Amino acid sequence: MKPTTKEDIDPFEEIIEGVKHAKGVKQDTELDVDDLKTLVEKYKVAVKAKTGKDFPQEPQQQLWRAIQAVFDSWNNDRAKYYRILNKIPEDWGTAVNVQAMVFGNMGNTSATGVGFTRDASTGENIFNGEYLINAQGEDVVAGIRTPQQITLIGSKRWAELQGVPEDVRKNQFPSLEESLPETYQELKNVQEKLEQHFKDMQDIEFTIQNGKLWLLQCRNGKRTGAAMVQIACDLLREGKIDEKTALKRIEPNKLDELLHPIFTPEALKTAKFVAKGLPASPGAASGQIVFFADEAKKFAQSILVRIETSPEDLEGMNIARGILTARGGMTSHAAVVARGMGKCCVCGAGSLNINYKQRTLEVNGKVYAEGDWISLNGSTGDVFEGKLKTQEAQLSGDFGLIMDWAEKYTRMYVRTNADTPKDAQIARKFGAKGIGLTRTEHMFFEGERIKAMREMILASDLAGRQTALAKLLPFQRSDFEVTIRLLDPPLHEFVPHETAQQQELAQDMGLTLDQVKQKVHELAEFNPMLGHRGCRLGITYPEITEMQTRAIIEAALNIKAKGMDVKPEIMVPLVGNVNELEHQLKVVKKTAETVFQERKDTIHYLVGTMIEVPRACLVADQIGQIAEFFSFGTNDLTQMTLGFSRDDAGKFLPYYINNGILKVDPFQVLDRQGVGKMVELAVKNGKSTNPNLKVGICGEHGGEPSSVEFFHIVGLDYVSCSPFRVPIARVAAAIANLTYP
Amino acid sequence: MKPTTKEDIDPFEEIIEGVKHAKGVKQDTELDVDDLKTLVEKYKVAVKAKTGKDFPQEPQQQLWRAIQAVFDSWNNDRAKYYRILNKIPEDWGTAVNVQAMVFGNMGNTSATGVGFTRDASTGENIFNGEYLINAQGEDVVAGIRTPQQITLIGSKRWAELQGVPEDVRKNQFPSLEESLPETYQELKNVQEKLEQHFKDMQDIEFTIQNGKLWLLQCRNGKRTGAAMVQIACDLLREGKIDEKTALKRIEPNKLDELLHPIFTPEALKTAKFVAKGLPASPGAASGQIVFFADEAKKFAQSILVRIETSPEDLEGMNIARGILTARGGMTSHAAVVARGMGKCCVCGAGSLNINYKQRTLEVNGKVYAEGDWISLNGSTGDVFEGKLKTQEAQLSGDFGLIMDWAEKYTRMYVRTNADTPKDAQIARKFGAKGIGLTRTEHMFFEGERIKAMREMILASDLAGRQTALAKLLPFQRSDFEVTIRLLDPPLHEFVPHETAQQQELAQDMGLTLDQVKQKVHELAEFNPMLGHRGCRLGITYPEITEMQTRAIIEAALNIKAKGMDVKPEIMVPLVGNVNELEHQLKVVKKTAETVFQERKDTIHYLVGTMIEVPRACLVADQIGQIAEFFSFGTNDLTQMTLGFSRDDAGKFLPYYINNGILKVDPFQVLDRQGVGKMVELAVKNGKSTNPNLKVGICGEHGGEPSSVEFFHIVGLDYVSCSPFRVPIARVAAAIANLTYP
Repeated sequence: MKPTTKEDIDPFEEIIEGVKHAKGVKQDTELDVDDLKTLVEKYKVAVKAKTGKDFPQEPQQQLWRAIQAVFDSWNNDRAKYYRILNKIPEDWGTAVNVQAMVFGNMGNTSATGVGFTRDASTGENIFNGEYLINAQGEDVVAGIRTPQQITLIGSKRWAELQGVPEDVRKNQFPSLEESLPETYQELKNVQEKLEQHFKDMQDIEFTIQNGKLWLLQCRNGKRTGAAMVQIACDLLREGKIDEKTALKRIEPNKLDELLHPIFTPEALKTAKFVAKGLPASPGAASGQIVFFADEAKKFAQSILVRIETSPEDLEGMNIARGILTARGGMTSHAAVVARGMGKCCVCGAGSLNINYKQRTLEVNGKVYAEGDWISLNGSTGDVFEGKLKTQEAQLSGDFGLIMDWAEKYTRMYVRTNADTPKDAQIARKFGAKGIGLTRTEHMFFEGERIKAMREMILASDLAGRQTALAKLLPFQRSDFEVTIRLLDPPLHEFVPHETAQQQELAQDMGLTLDQVKQKVHELAEFNPMLGHRGCRLGITYPEITEMQTRAIIEAALNIKAKGMDVKPEIMVPLVGNVNELEHQLKVVKKTAETVFQERKDTIHYLVGTMIEVPRACLVADQIGQIAEFFSFGTNDLTQMTLGFSRDDAGKFLPYYINNGILKVDPFQVLDRQGVGKMVELAVKNGKSTNPNLKVGICGEHGGEPSSVEFFHIVGLDYVSCSPFRVPIARVAAAIANLTYP
Repeated sequence: MKPTTKEDIDPFEEIIEGVKHAKGVKQDTELDVDDLKTLVEKYKVAVKAKTGKDFPQEPQQQLWRAIQAVFDSWNNDRAKYYRILNKIPEDWGTAVNVQAMVFGNMGNTSATGVGFTRDASTGENIFNGEYLINAQGEDVVAGIRTPQQITLIGSKRWAELQGVPEDVRKNQFPSLEESLPETYQELKNVQEKLEQHFKDMQDIEFTIQNGKLWLLQCRNGKRTGAAMVQIACDLLREGKIDEKTALKRIEPNKLDELLHPIFTPEALKTAKFVAKGLPASPGAASGQIVFFADEAKKFAQSILVRIETSPEDLEGMNIARGILTARGGMTSHAAVVARGMGKCCVCGAGSLNINYKQRTLEVNGKVYAEGDWISLNGSTGDVFEGKLKTQEAQLSGDFGLIMDWAEKYTRMYVRTNADTPKDAQIARKFGAKGIGLTRTEHMFFEGERIKAMREMILASDLAGRQTALAKLLPFQRSDFEVTIRLLDPPLHEFVPHETAQQQELAQDMGLTLDQVKQKVHELAEFNPMLGHRGCRLGITYPEITEMQTRAIIEAALNIKAKGMDVKPEIMVPLVGNVNELEHQLKVVKKTAETVFQERKDTIHYLVGTMIEVPRACLVADQIGQIAEFFSFGTNDLTQMTLGFSRDDAGKFLPYYINNGILKVDPFQVLDRQGVGKMVELAVKNGKSTNPNLKVGICGEHGGEPSSVEFFHIVGLDYVSCSPFRVPIARVAAAIANLTYP
């Protein structure tokens, strides 16, 4: 961000500094009338030099110009950036209020300040804020003079933190309570009244003109995640709001701050900014740079820096403290996996030039080598130089209270996307009701498994594939527990692409290097996202579906034998045509029957499909007739409905958002008009032929509050999201139910 | 195709041949009662050996088994293949008729045969057909005995062609007219009556049992394209049918046979089949194999054989007689370009293994080298060995008559997709009303143009891109004439991927090879189909849209200055969000205004968009408010709605079709339930806010009759297709209008 502040575009600050310097004073208030006259003359010259026109002398004209300037401010870079950060649409525009002015700089019984009815940082129920005697509003925030505390207790706390002795505090930095006690008392009463009226923590701007208190503005105060939880719970306990209102006061996304470590404010003050990427997975992390996943162990604290990651990097990603990639969007491999792990990740930082050969990272001319320290803020997408101090996440008892309310008021329930027992445990702790998505392929990358998988892929015939699949079976059997998606990614992702690894594979399989290279080449696709993947694999190689079904059913029977209850749901991915599901359904049912006969026992299981191809939404009435559940794969549905490759969108998506063509990243926030319409259509069509159809969503949008609200509105039964998003989704679902009952 | 015929699965033919051989006779009819008894015994043994069961002796049981066998025949490979060829849905199933039998093999006053009321090959109005004395139906088609002609004139023509002297003909192969003159006369009367009744050429199966004529079956006869045209026009001239009926008798796809050369039937009889691919562009061609487009001139008649083609191959494709690729579907680059050129092309022949280094082509163990002759049938997808004789296309006067009817009865009009003046000329000859799609990028591949294009892509800043674009401007200006799509493909397609060419480019541009390689690498995308292309290019680099708009408007003004009328339509590709179109609209309008001022003249032009992203259909009401026309890009719309990459679908699409998961290739025939639904939605939405919206389609489906019918039904104004499909689309559109007025 290159902010367009007043300092960047006009010379006024420089001029006033010059005048004060010439006179040998430090405060603006030390300038007398003649000094101000000189200043005005110099200002007029500067305006003429900059604009080529005289400064208008007609007050009416000045007013109109000022109004115009406010309107124009909507389009400055800083405003644009703010809107992006806060997801405020470009097309809202701004309003201009014209009103009489009060002056806080009319002498020592005048002042200006900002107050909060409660502590915006901790949520503590204490009136607090800052003010300056003989000053205007900008002086308080500009940092030229040191603002003083409004309350005596606040002032004393401040002095202690800053190491300011009591006598110095009292003389040089007295509280408003001390310097203008009557006005303070009036302000204190007003703030109480305002909070009582608005029933929320208020942020109040005031000016005192010759001893008379004027309120300039009053609004609900911004607050940290911790303060948000504290204030909502306190207001409830104080009887000011009821439970539903308290819950609606929670901004679900802000709960993230309670779940992940963050950089300390002090550390951030001195941090040297390096680059900006996408806030792919929240939290803060510092570590030494490594460029290869299998070298993540090289340092005790490492940051894995990659152009992009692939499933082969899984183990290294787990070891590293954080992940930084130059390419890929909010649903790229790195982003999805990192969120699942609850690991800090910044994605798609396009200004990074990574050179794997030289093991260097170059950004705007500066080069970082392997072993250099960097720090990532996965909640903002910022990348910093060096090692920054972090503070750990802490969950208060009030957090549990909010989870209880979420449970009480929600209609939709929340599941988790989990590929490992650890994921499942974390999610369960956060209140997930089940597993909405297990990606079987993530199990294929460790040790012997990837070998057997590759053997299967390289097999030239059915018998060869069956032999290899038999080797995979035990791994799948010991892994499976709840809801499982059949093999989804293109086979190309499982084969090695470096010659050395191909050579190794060739030796393992008794093939020539050329044969392996040829097979890898054959598997390559122009657009793998739209290629031979999902159920297209299970249909052309039914033996894969057979093996996976056998593993699922056997695992479920094993669990049942231990006296536990299990409800496996087998999910067929990428269905676009009812015939595809029908084909896979037959394979699954036949295999399950065989296993039931072998084991002389049965279990109840469901077979459903992921709805992720636009066509599936259009023919969901047909699919609904044979599917027992739909689970929306909104990542792929977004890719195909919008024609945006999540891995390539980095080339135009940031431009689109910065220039108002898109309001938000559709991979973060569900595109209601496009993808949402598709989801709505599919639910309506599906339920028209199967009123009992269970419908959920397992795309990344399942953990994003605005999207969760939409899923509530269109009547989904559940959302499923990565473990650390579960609390957020639960609160969002409950609030959606309160808002749209 | 490996047909499952009776010969493949049972030993009956072998046994009867053995019995005849033992007796020293040649015809089945020469076996006496005892021989037949022996035969039956042997048959029973064979049945027992094959099935493990005795042949059932109970007639009722035999009948049920026979009925079952007919039902089962629906699923044999031959039937499946026939259904694919003729686009008959898998789920129709078959019926079984049980009726009393008549015998054509009861002696010399018995016979069986097949007759046509007109010549199925030429359309000539002459009764014709074949028969055999003392035979059953199968004997006529089985090829064991030489069938004889029904009419005397037919018999004489046959003898002349075969070089059979008149006395031999009369004694050994007499016509039915000669051998059973009374029955012949009866048959002749019946066929006249039948044609009179059905008002179309009839295909009649008959059996004569002891002199009594029985009709087994009567149906509209299959015919060649030439016969189809001839018969429809003749029946009209004979007053048997009216113009509308005559037009509806035209199967539009069959007109292809009149527009392209075909292999002679004699050549096909001895042709050695090599492989099967997709019938990507009709016609027949023989040539010597070349593997590189720039070597197409190496032989006077060459066939370009590639794994896939790219825009760089354009010139070589134009020189070659035909194109054969191992990969890619009906809308792959090779297919689209070949159809545009009217050049024979077979695509996606998956069994080919092409080795560019060794310049060889291997199929099922057999290797073909550069310079070897091969032959392609682009209408069927067959690849043959060697040089086959072809016969040229000939257009009769009746063809013109049919085009006149099409003009008279159609509601939709037909445009053409044309990138060169030659394309436009051909299409105009066939009656195209305008150009529905000019792909500007096809102009960027010749000589100096590709250099300037690459310079633009490699430029690191706006100024550099503008300099390069200025060099492209004159080329664009001299090319443009009518309806133009702005730059669509990803930039990666324009840069060279071989090191030698990259080296050359680096020298031309004054860059290092590494810099060029780096840029090419940066442009690479995971899923270019969903990447940085279409209007995403024009938005992130508005200077491209400016340059193209300037070229279009200047060209139009030049034409106007020559006193001609021109209506340019500027088409913004890949819009999914109204803001995208709005952005491009502004750039176009501003540029056009600038040119108008420079030239002190104006012209009327339209700005519209291609609808090819699913989301665009969902928000077409918004887009319709600012677009002046929609043109459906059904190729990309199919890719995204179904999630099928046209270049990769070869890995599963053939399997899907062969196994009934899909009925037809959705890139050939519009998927009405999915893509069609999208088109319908977009038309409805678009017209809801802009009743005057002009709507057309410029995808490959615009030349496919069933799709054209659908476009008529949903109310499009026009279809646009490759030049050689124009007559087909015109007839299809007119028939659709007659069927759904």
